[in-house]
Formats: sequence, C-alpha cells, structure tokens
Amino acid sequence: MIKPLKITVNASSKYDVLIGKNLIKDSGEILSGLVSKCKVAIITDDVVDKLYSSIVTTSLETAGFKVVKFVFKNGEQSKNIDTYAQILSFLATNELTRTDCVLALGGGVVGDMAGFVSATYLRGIKYVQVPTTLLAQIDSSVGGKTAIDLKEGKNLVGAFYQPQVVICDVDTLNSLPKAVFDDGMGEVAKYVVLDKLIYEHVTHDGSLEKLIALLVDYKRRIVEEDEFEGGKRRLLNFGHTIAHAIEKLSDYKTSHGSAVATGVKVILNLSKKHRFIDSETYENLSSATDKCVKAQELKYDIEQVAKACFNDKKRSGNTVNLVMAYGIGDARDVKVEVDKLKEFLS
Amino acid sequence: MIKPLKITVNASSKYDVLIGKNLIKDSGEILSGLVSKCKVAIITDDVVDKLYSSIVTTSLETAGFKVVKFVFKNGEQSKNIDTYAQILSFLATNELTRTDCVLALGGGVVGDMAGFVSATYLRGIKYVQVPTTLLAQIDSSVGGKTAIDLKEGKNLVGAFYQPQVVICDVDTLNSLPKAVFDDGMGEVAKYVVLDKLIYEHVTHDGSLEKLIALLVDYKRRIVEEDEFEGGKRRLLNFGHTIAHAIEKLSDYKTSHGSAVATGVKVILNLSKKHRFIDSETYENLSSATDKCVKAQELKYDIEQVAKACFNDKKRSGNTVNLVMAYGIGDARDVKVEVDKLKEFLS
Repeated sequence: MIKPLKITVNASSKYDVLIGKNLIKDSGEILSGLVSKCKVAIITDDVVDKLYSSIVTTSLETAGFKVVKFVFKNGEQSKNIDTYAQILSFLATNELTRTDCVLALGGGVVGDMAGFVSATYLRGIKYVQVPTTLLAQIDSSVGGKTAIDLKEGKNLVGAFYQPQVVICDVDTLNSLPKAVFDDGMGEVAKYVVLDKLIYEHVTHDGSLEKLIALLVDYKRRIVEEDEFEGGKRRLLNFGHTIAHAIEKLSDYKTSHGSAVATGVKVILNLSKKHRFIDSETYENLSSATDKCVKAQELKYDIEQVAKACFNDKKRSGNTVNLVMAYGIGDARDVKVEVDKLKEFLS
Repeated sequence: MIKPLKITVNASSKYDVLIGKNLIKDSGEILSGLVSKCKVAIITDDVVDKLYSSIVTTSLETAGFKVVKFVFKNGEQSKNIDTYAQILSFLATNELTRTDCVLALGGGVVGDMAGFVSATYLRGIKYVQVPTTLLAQIDSSVGGKTAIDLKEGKNLVGAFYQPQVVICDVDTLNSLPKAVFDDGMGEVAKYVVLDKLIYEHVTHDGSLEKLIALLVDYKRRIVEEDEFEGGKRRLLNFGHTIAHAIEKLSDYKTSHGSAVATGVKVILNLSKKHRFIDSETYENLSSATDKCVKAQELKYDIEQVAKACFNDKKRSGNTVNLVMAYGIGDARDVKVEVDKLKEFLS
C-alpha cells in the first residue's frame, strides 16, 4: 500500500481522512487496523456498484470481513425515507449488531444516507466513508453531517455522526462524467473565497490530490472548532443559501455544485455591491472561481430567490444568515431581516 | 404553581425532571423559563389527545407560545417509520425551525417517537417530555433513548437525545386503565431488585409521587455514569432480554411491562438456581416484586425463549448479556455464549 496523504479529524470522535491513488483496493487492510473482523454492509448505488463494489468486496473478504451489500438507484431522488427504511430493514434482516460496520461507497447521496442509517440503526453503529465523487471527497466526507430529504425540502432530516475512517481514492474521480466532476468544482469555488492557501493553489494550477488534501484540511479546522454548527462553521454556507434557493426553484434539476457555483458568483457580486470587497479583490476572486468552473447565470428573479430563501434551514426566526466575502480568505456572517431580504439581494 | 419534586439530570446536556400533582397546567410557565417564545409542536396520540391536549395547549398559549398539534393512533403499532415520516412532514409543512420546540405528550410510544423525530428533524431541535403513563414517567423519560420499531424488531432504530425538561404530572396516572398502570409496575419490579432504597419504599408502601422520584433518581445516577450504554447502564436491562423474547413470541400482544414482570421473575428464579442468591433473598425479592404487580407465568418453552434471545439488540457477536440478581440492590452482568444459552435458561 502506497502511503496516502492523511488528515486527522478531531471531532467528537477522532478519525483519519486518507487521500491517495488506487486506494480502494486497500479498503480491507485499512479497516483491519480499525475494527475487529466483523460483518460489513456495503451501501452503494447502481452506477458505483458496477464500477467499484467488486474491488472493495474482494479487498474486505481477503482481509477476513464478511460482506453483504445493498444497492439502490443512483440519484438524489433516492435520498428519501423509503430508501432509508429499506436499508434499515436490510441491516436488520442480515442481523447486523453493534459490533458490525457499514461502508458507504459512492457520492454524496450514498454518504449522506448511509451515514444517517449508521447514526440511527441500533442507535448508532460504526461506519466507513468511501467517497467516489469530488464533491463527496471534499465536502460530505468531513463534518459528520448525515441527512435524507423530505418532499418539503432537502436535508431536512439527519444527524451529526462521525465515521471510523474516510478513504478518498482520487482515481475514482477519473470515472466521473464531466458534469459530476464540475459539480465538485462548484464547491471548490466556495473554498477559493474562504481560504488563501486554496486560492493560491487554484491560481497556480496545483495537483488535484494536494487540492483535495487542502480542502479537507480547511474543512477539518472549521469543523473541529465548531462541530455542531453554532458559529464559524456557518462560513461553509458561503453561496449555499442562494444555491439551495436555485435548486428548489429548478425543482432540483440544477445540480448542487452547479447551484453553488452560481450562488458563489451571486454572493461575490453582492459583496462588491454592498462594498464588503473592492473591485480588484472582486476580479481576483472571480477569476479564481472561474478557473474552478464556469458558473451559470442566475435564471430566476430576485423576488423568487428571496422567497425560496425564507424556507431555508439556516433561517432562525425572522432573519436569514448570509455569508458574504470580505476579502481573499475572509468571509463573514451577515444577518438580514426577512423583510429586507429582497432589497438586500436586488 | 405548587413546587414539584425536582431531579436534575447531568447527561450530555443538563435538564430537570419535575414530578408533582396537577403539573401539566403549568407547562407554559415551565417552558417559559427554558426557551424563548416559539412555535411548539405537540405530538400525541388520539387517547391522550382527548384527555390532556387542551389543558397543555391553553397553558402554552397563555404563556405566549404558538401551538401546532400532530395526533396519531394510540398503540405500539404506530411506532413505525410511516408515522415517523408523517410527523417529519408535519413539522416541515408547519415550518418549524431550529429555534422551535417539540412537546411529547403521552406514554412511551409518544415519547420514543417524538424524541427520535426531535433528534433528527433539522439534525436536532429542542424537545420537552410530558409523560402521562407510569412506565413513561419512570423509564423512557430519563436516559435520552429515543426509538422506533422495524417490522424486524422493536426499537431497532433511534438515537440518544436529551430533552429540555421532563414534566411528570402524577395526576395523569389516575386516568390510566389498570392494565396500563400495572404495565408500569412491571418496570418498578425491576428497580426493586436493583436498588435498596426502592426495595424499602415498596416494602413499606410509600407514596407514588416519592416512588417516582426515587425511580427517576436511581435511573439518573446510572445514566450519568454511562450515557451511551457501555457499562453500568446495562443493569437496567434486568429482566429485559427475557421480556423482549416474550414480547416477540407473543407477536407483541403481551405488553412491555407485563413481559418485564415475567422476565424479572424468570431471572430471579435463574439467579436462585445458579446460586447467585440464597433462598431468603429470593423470597424477599419475590414478595417485593409481587407487591408491585403479580407476574404472569412464562408460557413459552425454553427452546423458544433462547432462540428469541439470539436476536436481541444486546447480543454482541456470539454472546448474550444477561443481568442476574446477586442480592437486594446488587445485580451483575453475566455473559452467556449463544450455544450454552438454552442450558443456562432451563
């Protein structure tokens, strides 16, 4: 096993995020160092299943684990209570106990849902994240946020729950369709504003492996300071209130990353308009975020966006929190009263 | 407001259990001291709704809270993922945010389910327990265990989650059918073995209010030492592995408390048989548990019971943990190998 990059996360429990090439074939070996030989339930979707399940299964079985597998249909529309219930029944039918383990193999949908299953089955069993998309590797794999959607909105149900280890195999990103890769780069655009190191790395065309490590490490620092999202972690919502509004208005036909890229662009414009940043900073940040991914124009009018923001999970009482850019590597939370939101956005 | 008995629980968050007469009419006043004026979603069942919803609603509204209410059909068969999903949608439709609050009004089923909803809606919102059965007041209101059932077994899904306050109105116990009250006394029988103070109180026919306070305080001590159930808290499973087997074998027609009463009796017999206690201790404990409730005879043969025990949540790998009596106020965990379980029980 080639030594991967390692970021150790000190959340309510401590775990490593491993980043490297050709890493999933070592899943069994990695797990052996962490849990005793047990039953491992792989949770994955039908697209990822065809690509990587057999490699992971072979690796786990060679290391002495017993493997069972649950496969659901790829896509956000599977991230609901029905699939959640099916997976729980699958674990119960296969008699997984508290000493057994779940392995989430796939993108954000798989990770969010398998994470929530792990947080709640028998009030919590061990789980391992093997994210296979850029978005999942840099974002959903750190922070312990697990979730499923309701028909009333995305991620409305979930838990904070930490994995035993996160295995990020950068080679799995080669199999991603361009649109899905760009989706991850939409999220990278957010970090370019939040962190100077990441801004520099993107500006100077650094390697993807190192970029992922920088992103994971940045998120680690934020999450360690604020695991349960009272303060600094809110900065990670940069561009997201707008993005959630866009996703909702498009009836979730716009992907998350694409919506974030647009959200980041909208917030940069607003930050300039409200004079939180000057024109030069705006140009620098804009061109760095453009290097990540070309954001689509906002297709909805302000009234629609403002209304969709009202229903955001991050709303508290009569104010909406919007994270604004104040410089390269400097973002701050701004409270906007619901009544004044339309004016602020226009 | 007459000053209620108060037990302060120091779990991962700190909260009070209040015990007194005619207490639910002060719900609004009690909540006012804990959370700022917000929306309160009362979760209750159709039986309790008719008895107490209007008193609680009036009290909350008088104190300045906005009240919405979700009512589901009384009974364990409602404690499933469908009802869970319905309540989540209800909260989302009523736009409850993280600054709002859930109030669980009813027995253990209501408390377990409303607690799990609160633990997971928006990854956790505040909630208040108002238990209206003896079993819920003494047992499910302390310890932060929330749960729903799967068709594969009871309480297989849930979370550890603490309320803001627990309001135990002993007057609500007057409205309980005898069978439901006895159900709670089955659980009391367990504590009679576990704690000398409770044994003495029951032996000397002490008051119900004080009994509830003693039970809550005993459970508090255990839970504070072991919130996430690694060690001492296992003692609370006294009689429960057998009870769960009985419930399962009866297709859940035998109530939990009645099954516990039988489970306690079976374990006392086994404790005597395996010479963990002598005959005198056995007689003393037996007559004290009989004062709580007359346990039904075990109707199933040992082979059936042993098999049902295999599937218990408390099984870890190839051993089943059984808590045995070693004296008055002395119970200990005994590991029994699955292969030897039938022999141990017979």
